[in-house]
Amino acid sequence: MKIAIQGGHYSFHDLVARRWFGEAAEIVPCESFADVFAALQSETADKAVVAIENSLYGSINEVYDLLLKHQFPIIGEVPEHIHQQLITHPDTTLADIQVVYSHPVALNQCAQFLDTYLPQAERIEYFDTAESVAHIKALGDHQAAAIAGHGAAQAHGMAILSENIEDEATNFTRFLILDRDAEAVDGADKASLVLRTSHKPGALYEALGIFANRNINLTKLHSRPIRGKVWLYQFFIDCEADTDQLTESIEALRNADCEVTLLGHYRKATTGDID
Amino acid sequence: MKIAIQGGHYSFHDLVARRWFGEAAEIVPCESFADVFAALQSETADKAVVAIENSLYGSINEVYDLLLKHQFPIIGEVPEHIHQQLITHPDTTLADIQVVYSHPVALNQCAQFLDTYLPQAERIEYFDTAESVAHIKALGDHQAAAIAGHGAAQAHGMAILSENIEDEATNFTRFLILDRDAEAVDGADKASLVLRTSHKPGALYEALGIFANRNINLTKLHSRPIRGKVWLYQFFIDCEADTDQLTESIEALRNADCEVTLLGHYRKATTGDID
Repeated sequence: MKIAIQGGHYSFHDLVARRWFGEAAEIVPCESFADVFAALQSETADKAVVAIENSLYGSINEVYDLLLKHQFPIIGEVPEHIHQQLITHPDTTLADIQVVYSHPVALNQCAQFLDTYLPQAERIEYFDTAESVAHIKALGDHQAAAIAGHGAAQAHGMAILSENIEDEATNFTRFLILDRDAEAVDGADKASLVLRTSHKPGALYEALGIFANRNINLTKLHSRPIRGKVWLYQFFIDCEADTDQLTESIEALRNADCEVTLLGHYRKATTGDID
Repeated sequence: MKIAIQGGHYSFHDLVARRWFGEAAEIVPCESFADVFAALQSETADKAVVAIENSLYGSINEVYDLLLKHQFPIIGEVPEHIHQQLITHPDTTLADIQVVYSHPVALNQCAQFLDTYLPQAERIEYFDTAESVAHIKALGDHQAAAIAGHGAAQAHGMAILSENIEDEATNFTRFLILDRDAEAVDGADKASLVLRTSHKPGALYEALGIFANRNINLTKLHSRPIRGKVWLYQFFIDCEADTDQLTESIEALRNADCEVTLLGHYRKATTGDID
């Protein structure tokens, strides 16, 4: 089975993919999230793992837009506690560092650390955390650092100069598991859907009432612009609903003039740990 | 009067600032949005102009977070129709271009154009549209292009190779006008506020009901994570309300166990045009 991930081997996506699908799964590394969806489209991969939000950075808009564009079903979620490491060549000190490479979301998670301890260093966005470690190794640049997980430092034989440099101990990333083909998930109790309400005042309130009146808990509500419509938004909603509740709610939403796209119905997960 | 803007002279922020405050205003160019807020904080500037959302790109999360952190009052809004130009040295052709510089939001607005006509070109994020034009001029690089408005091309004596390259004709950016000191705006009919609901199911629905039941139109609802709380969100809300409606709603929200921060009460604007 081939699993497309954003990033390279030893990235957080890689760890999540191997934990979900087992060590036998073949990882298909992709430079961008768009490439991950293209890999499913072209059948280069059967499944995919994509980060959708981080508790410090927020929602990853690009992935929300790609989910709606491609509509590959979400079959699971993996929320993970993430720890970031400052990784360098073994002889590098904090004072030496002129440049820090990492994925933009990881740079954002460590912004306070970088402001405080590395104000002199330029931050350069790289497509992947683990690959940014491989990059500074290949460069042989002892004035460079990378931000990634423990596993990436070990795998590339590089040193961890500062440990757990994320701005808050509560640094969680939620990953989604995608399938190329639709498949019903046993015991599904959480759904992701996209809602476009009618444009009358109170339309969103009315739509949320459909969930509230059924005691369906909304765990996420994220707005994104509708391309081509100015100042109109669509709402990505995660809710805790079994099949009956979900079917009923979607029917009620459509009866209330909402456009609804179901992105997936899967099992709610508990949170794990990645260092 | 000194006006802090994100970006340099001839940027879209600069055009909006001069339109709002008049040509006599002294512009204080800032590399980042954080620098704009720091300029107000240090009294290097009296007012500021910051983009808050674009109809193709979406919300600019960094600005939402800075608005809440600093709470400089919003005293106005300026929605503008934005046109992007592909700007080069006069002898450059599309086939020559190996690299395109611009602000990340501008690169995003032109992603389809770049995919179609410049698939070979690397996209490099620059802190400002207009300054990316100055940059390729200074480099003397005839294989480079920049994306910015007409004014930036004219000001720097560079050529427009392709006109209006934004992905959709409906490319609008909404700018906010900020003041260092609070000041009541005459005839204010639009408010921006931040809402943290209690954590019980249906809390957001109940909060939105407070607006709906008063016939207050919500024009924007944007969620951001609360740092230090995992999978809990705060909601940035724009609504059309006069002073009485606003005072009443805030009181009702607080009575319903919501934490409310008012970011500003200002006059709703109509949309202008920037090319």
